[in-house]
Amino acid sequence: MIVIGERINGMFKVVGQAIQDRDKAVIKDLALKQLAEGADKLDINVGTATADPAAGMAWLVETVREATDVCLSIDNPNLGTVKAGLEACTGAKMINSTTGSEEALDTFFPLAKQHNASIIALCIDEKGVPVSVDGRCEIALRIVAKAMEHDITTDDLYIDPIVLPVKASQAGPGVVLECIKQFSVLADPAPHIIVGLSNLSQGAVDRKLINRAFLTMAIGVGLDAAILDPLDTELMDAMIAAEMLMNRAIYSDSFLKAYRQR
Amino acid sequence: MIVIGERINGMFKVVGQAIQDRDKAVIKDLALKQLAEGADKLDINVGTATADPAAGMAWLVETVREATDVCLSIDNPNLGTVKAGLEACTGAKMINSTTGSEEALDTFFPLAKQHNASIIALCIDEKGVPVSVDGRCEIALRIVAKAMEHDITTDDLYIDPIVLPVKASQAGPGVVLECIKQFSVLADPAPHIIVGLSNLSQGAVDRKLINRAFLTMAIGVGLDAAILDPLDTELMDAMIAAEMLMNRAIYSDSFLKAYRQR
Repeated sequence: MIVIGERINGMFKVVGQAIQDRDKAVIKDLALKQLAEGADKLDINVGTATADPAAGMAWLVETVREATDVCLSIDNPNLGTVKAGLEACTGAKMINSTTGSEEALDTFFPLAKQHNASIIALCIDEKGVPVSVDGRCEIALRIVAKAMEHDITTDDLYIDPIVLPVKASQAGPGVVLECIKQFSVLADPAPHIIVGLSNLSQGAVDRKLINRAFLTMAIGVGLDAAILDPLDTELMDAMIAAEMLMNRAIYSDSFLKAYRQR
Repeated sequence: MIVIGERINGMFKVVGQAIQDRDKAVIKDLALKQLAEGADKLDINVGTATADPAAGMAWLVETVREATDVCLSIDNPNLGTVKAGLEACTGAKMINSTTGSEEALDTFFPLAKQHNASIIALCIDEKGVPVSVDGRCEIALRIVAKAMEHDITTDDLYIDPIVLPVKASQAGPGVVLECIKQFSVLADPAPHIIVGLSNLSQGAVDRKLINRAFLTMAIGVGLDAAILDPLDTELMDAMIAAEMLMNRAIYSDSFLKAYRQR
């Protein structure tokens, strides 16, 4: 499982404040804490904390890079801010994200190639997020075809079927599980399949319970990457147990600790 | 999800003692507690607590029946003890279990029919539990064919792919998940698919974590019944969350409570 830690996000009050204050210690601490709990990569989202998001993104990236050399996921909807993050990022990087419209793919895939970055592509296009499995598979197929055209390898491609709040539509999680099954056989080798987990439980009670139940279900049908909160210990424990049950992490009496320290 | 409560089992010390003492209050209390936590049916297993298991089984069944009219699962490997349980059981009942050998199916399916009982059939035969998905599917197909021959409806048929301890074989859980997917399309309508959950974590640490991670994964691929401990609150919460995410239980801010009280 590839875990992308979600906590360096300007929408969190403490992070937003740190961005405004250019307080490196807070950001570096959050980076190292997430890595200690098992994160493999770190998402970097400047949010709306600053009037100059491009400069804020560059500062965040440089700050986190002083603490770790893991892959950083440059997370912003704005092309200019993404570019600022990529340019500031030495070493491994990833773009989070492009939509699945033809125009966006033709813009972001060359950018990923230029920066030697992996990239997350969302199953949404100019018509929105398709309600049906078939509709999302259609976009996923377009993403895979465009990736080949732009010479992006499946190992650098993360397809996101898009998790919407279960409170808004209870049919949604089942659609995503079916998408994950089908995306697994879209190409050989398969692209990575990723979800932004926390969105699932927006507005719901028992958010952590809902998140971890869905994460284990998704791993069972082929999910291999997620943006999530690695500081949620019960979530990480559930994920590690699921990985062990899928025979992708070895059972020992200290399997939880061993996974985090791998 | 059909939950069969596993707690009335003579292998538990307090139950074994109650069977020896013919202490009805302990047994009835355990029955009602499991139902209050969301069990739909109750497994009745006399274990090795008594020199006369047939008489012990009959007493257990009659005692539980005084407290509730839910379906009772008569759980014993010995034909005579199963018969004693079935004869003592007024109202809804189920046989737990028959193996998938031709001889056992030809013995237990007529017995189920005679007593108007549903029945659990295990994916094991005279050669043992097949290691492969194909081997278990072969037995499951034999079970389905024999059920048709003996006029057992798919609604009365529960096929168990057999969960073995993950500590003994880490490939096992993945095989079971694949079996569940394939059993779902064995017949139309499909038979129920059931697992005895607790066996998964025999001898392991973090047993409850392992059990609930696997249960949610199995629900995600089509499991619709399980023998488990309904007094394990976190397990039941995870299961109810998975059912809600599969759109089989309605989301409300009190969805956990609502499910248990349904």
